[in-house]
Amino acid sequence: MGLPGAAVRDNRRVGEFELLAKVRERLGAPGPRMRLGSGDDAAVTVPGGATATSVDALVEGVHFRRDAGPERIGHKALATALSDLAAMGAEAGEAYAVVGLPEDFGEEDCLRLIDGMLELAGRTGTTLAGGDVTRAPVLTLAVTVVGHAPAAEDFVSRAGAQPGDVLVLTGGLGGAAAGLALLEDAALAAAVPATVADRLRRSQLQPWPRLSAGRALAAGGARAMIDLSDGLGGDAGHLASASAVRLEIDAGALPMVEGVAAVADAAGIDPLRLASAGGEDYELLAALPPDRLDEAAARVAATGEANLSEIGRVAAGAGVEIRLPAGGSLAAAGFDQLRRRQGRAIP
Amino acid sequence: MGLPGAAVRDNRRVGEFELLAKVRERLGAPGPRMRLGSGDDAAVTVPGGATATSVDALVEGVHFRRDAGPERIGHKALATALSDLAAMGAEAGEAYAVVGLPEDFGEEDCLRLIDGMLELAGRTGTTLAGGDVTRAPVLTLAVTVVGHAPAAEDFVSRAGAQPGDVLVLTGGLGGAAAGLALLEDAALAAAVPATVADRLRRSQLQPWPRLSAGRALAAGGARAMIDLSDGLGGDAGHLASASAVRLEIDAGALPMVEGVAAVADAAGIDPLRLASAGGEDYELLAALPPDRLDEAAARVAATGEANLSEIGRVAAGAGVEIRLPAGGSLAAAGFDQLRRRQGRAIP
Repeated sequence: MGLPGAAVRDNRRVGEFELLAKVRERLGAPGPRMRLGSGDDAAVTVPGGATATSVDALVEGVHFRRDAGPERIGHKALATALSDLAAMGAEAGEAYAVVGLPEDFGEEDCLRLIDGMLELAGRTGTTLAGGDVTRAPVLTLAVTVVGHAPAAEDFVSRAGAQPGDVLVLTGGLGGAAAGLALLEDAALAAAVPATVADRLRRSQLQPWPRLSAGRALAAGGARAMIDLSDGLGGDAGHLASASAVRLEIDAGALPMVEGVAAVADAAGIDPLRLASAGGEDYELLAALPPDRLDEAAARVAATGEANLSEIGRVAAGAGVEIRLPAGGSLAAAGFDQLRRRQGRAIP
Repeated sequence: MGLPGAAVRDNRRVGEFELLAKVRERLGAPGPRMRLGSGDDAAVTVPGGATATSVDALVEGVHFRRDAGPERIGHKALATALSDLAAMGAEAGEAYAVVGLPEDFGEEDCLRLIDGMLELAGRTGTTLAGGDVTRAPVLTLAVTVVGHAPAAEDFVSRAGAQPGDVLVLTGGLGGAAAGLALLEDAALAAAVPATVADRLRRSQLQPWPRLSAGRALAAGGARAMIDLSDGLGGDAGHLASASAVRLEIDAGALPMVEGVAAVADAAGIDPLRLASAGGEDYELLAALPPDRLDEAAARVAATGEANLSEIGRVAAGAGVEIRLPAGGSLAAAGFDQLRRRQGRAIP
């Protein structure tokens, strides 16, 4: 500090400075665009093109529970923010984290939380470039992420889907919702092999942002894209609205994560509802011109991150329809019911 | 939403979507670097040079009290974030705000808070480019700001001060601390004219980020710069440490805001301690080569934002010394004492 004497040692701001210094010690090498890292008034970068910036907040008791463990909470906070960059087809760049610490969440817990972020940051090419630590009544995280592309036109927004496009989805659905059900009711685990149950729980606690798949879809001709944070039904609605089109989704074509159907059956929930209304899968939904479908599928498969499924089409009009194989559509009441369950599940 | 039927109407996420839509309606025209604004997965900008990014968190009960009023809370959250950009000599660009809303802070309050941000954003050329709204147990704000310069070298970090440089300060000291004292003890207002008391309270509640002065100092040759959020003593220590130099400050040269001495006297606090240890003045402290002093002073004065005062010099060594006119230095105990008072003042 440089002040004469020990100075404001008992002031809580000093505790924050010391904690921030320990956090800085853990940071790895800065990314290629960084010119000045954490510890000054601001972090300096040279983007060299266009940037996509997204902010996400996670509050204990609203978005996560403390018993997930500090590393997983840190991972999930960064993962959900990076998922927005994946949905733009961006290359991950820098992350800035605000951590609000309650009295009963100690320095060691905070450093473990940062470690969880750093582990994911390292694996996705993200630089944790700055942040702030403060007191808060409950554990509170706000993560800002900046992604990059050569030009603004290289990013894929939610608008741009056109009638005639095919709708594609990365990976599978329902994993996070089934994982949540398993975490809440351990007895449900009997419905699936232990390794499958582990994988489902992990997809709830440690989602993986589809950054490579997102870039592959952008390069493969995606005209509109969104990540599934609120569930297929809701997020498809956002894309339809932004693109001013109607989305027709074939329920029979929806890829289900292994074990979801068994867990849903054991829990007495319609597996289709779990897959289409359960949130937090963080898969990508995109609209592609039909003649780019094979190329896009090959590009996504080549990332090794996920496979691409064709799940429907874009039509003129408005709204989203999830068509059942036996005819008819998934009714709105189903969403309501499940959402309420989930609302209770995470108080 | 596009979902069949009224869908998840009772789900709290929908309330957030609707509130975000109302916030978006209030946003003005996007800045020149914006390509895609709030409402998609991420905001897209084309920086066209180097960027400086800073994150600040403000938590009710820690950094502000609710009774300041929503507009002032919004203003202060953005102002303190922009002050970090001012300290880099950056041009303000985009801001991203996370707002955590407690149950008893309604939609109208939230929109007034955003209005407070937008008013300052408009006056500083900042675009409110995105954000997130969530539930939280107390009012919580996290603001990310991005500033711009043609090249990374145009930013002024905390490092770079050299022995022989002069130390300069924008504006005056103690206003925010005196304003806080007035807010806590209305009887102190008798010590100064009503217009002066109003101004002091405003400097606590609605600080102004010295963006123009910061750019003038950068153009005028500043080699190191920092904004005074924690008080002159503490922040000078950060600059000394980052630059690996010793700072000698002449207490007799410190510019005091009008009314600070009178309020300090009435409160039984040494005015010099109030000015040097009271935080939140958000003035800029910079190190300049002596031969650039006149030019820098003229540039800062031309902004109309603040005047520049020469308050000391940079020497070889480490630490900060605040030299008293009568000889000797301001002792560390003084900082301790006042800090503790302030710690109690904002619980």
